[in-house]
Amino acid sequence: MNKIYVVGIGPGAYEKMTIEAEEALKKCDTIIGYTVYIDLVKDHFADKEFLSTPMRKEVERCVMAFEEANKGKTVAMICSGDAGVYGMAGLIYEVGKDYPETEIKVIPGVTAAVSGAAVLGAPLIHDFCLISLSDLLTPWELIEERLRSAAKGDFVCCLYNPSSVKRHDYLMKACDILMEHKSGETVCGIVNNIGRDGEGMKVMSLKELRDTEVDMFTTVFIGNSQTKVIKGKMVTPRGYKNV
Amino acid sequence: MNKIYVVGIGPGAYEKMTIEAEEALKKCDTIIGYTVYIDLVKDHFADKEFLSTPMRKEVERCVMAFEEANKGKTVAMICSGDAGVYGMAGLIYEVGKDYPETEIKVIPGVTAAVSGAAVLGAPLIHDFCLISLSDLLTPWELIEERLRSAAKGDFVCCLYNPSSVKRHDYLMKACDILMEHKSGETVCGIVNNIGRDGEGMKVMSLKELRDTEVDMFTTVFIGNSQTKVIKGKMVTPRGYKNV
Repeated sequence: MNKIYVVGIGPGAYEKMTIEAEEALKKCDTIIGYTVYIDLVKDHFADKEFLSTPMRKEVERCVMAFEEANKGKTVAMICSGDAGVYGMAGLIYEVGKDYPETEIKVIPGVTAAVSGAAVLGAPLIHDFCLISLSDLLTPWELIEERLRSAAKGDFVCCLYNPSSVKRHDYLMKACDILMEHKSGETVCGIVNNIGRDGEGMKVMSLKELRDTEVDMFTTVFIGNSQTKVIKGKMVTPRGYKNV
Repeated sequence: MNKIYVVGIGPGAYEKMTIEAEEALKKCDTIIGYTVYIDLVKDHFADKEFLSTPMRKEVERCVMAFEEANKGKTVAMICSGDAGVYGMAGLIYEVGKDYPETEIKVIPGVTAAVSGAAVLGAPLIHDFCLISLSDLLTPWELIEERLRSAAKGDFVCCLYNPSSVKRHDYLMKACDILMEHKSGETVCGIVNNIGRDGEGMKVMSLKELRDTEVDMFTTVFIGNSQTKVIKGKMVTPRGYKNV
């Protein structure tokens, strides 16, 4: 049977991939992905065929994967982080409706929420929400509703896609909504270029975060009411009762 | 400087660990963890010293790690899944206040939300909440508030610790709260023994989930309003607009 692996390669550095992901890539004839992700693994798999489509051509990339599999090749579709968190796994299943003869296997990886948390300390020890601020495919009103719900429930929040050229003030808007229910003193953190050259982190208050410029390679963390700073790290306790 | 690695070893099977996690374990003299996790890695590291404390003795386990590090040993504290999601990373930082001479490094891993999602299909493609139903350290009223907030915001929800001997009806209670704002027909899924012997999954409606018995080795997924079933898999689209 034809087979497509949908592989999360982790945040960037090769060793942040799982052993299972590495084994799947070794088994493949063809590795397909956005060019930036291809560049992260290419040197380790010199004997493979690499194919790519530009950003925003995700449907075309999935069709390409199934067409290659149809030629009898074992194909890996690679994603940064995890393939199932804002990744290609969903689209592969949707496009796969037209290719019933192809088996799909998702190989999980370390998503930016988890790898970024490890850089910041331990912000995600308790219940959290993952919210993307990109309104490309989601109405902004729903994103606002989610931010409000998350703040009301005292969730730790992790924000993906906090900014882009067109959306330079979205993080500021998001912080204003969160501050309807969260204190401006809430402990927050940002991590950029996780697991890559230039990795950096900063811990700050929600008020400070509101006025911080971030780019699209930044992941943002907003603590719950219990989150604190320990030796410069952002740490959420494992509960609300004394440990 | 003394060093403690806090290592997420993934859901169970050895190859679901990252290459970085494996390298950290190789560098260590002593590996500390709950006995179940020790058993998952022991055969691969026969030359290491293994130490353990029983369940619920997590503070003691952290103190043990720092005391061993103080003897000049390089120590790994292992957790299943990721060390930073309901894991030991937070407590290590808290206990570490008394051991300022010890460096802490968190090595992220694949948490059950992510590895379970890969088994079910692609349920976490869009914004989601992670909520633990354990009220050991969190007031049940806050858990209810979070479930309500998550349902109102049309988040995909992933539930950890959905049941235990003492809390056999908590999943039922949680589903009733979610159904205040989510349809009973919402696509849901459960995964048990992720990445271990006896791994299984089932896709069902929220109404059916309400009356399903689960155990403590089960991770539960509740879709958003767009989540659908494709070839028996649980798939959440990447947005609310036509792709």
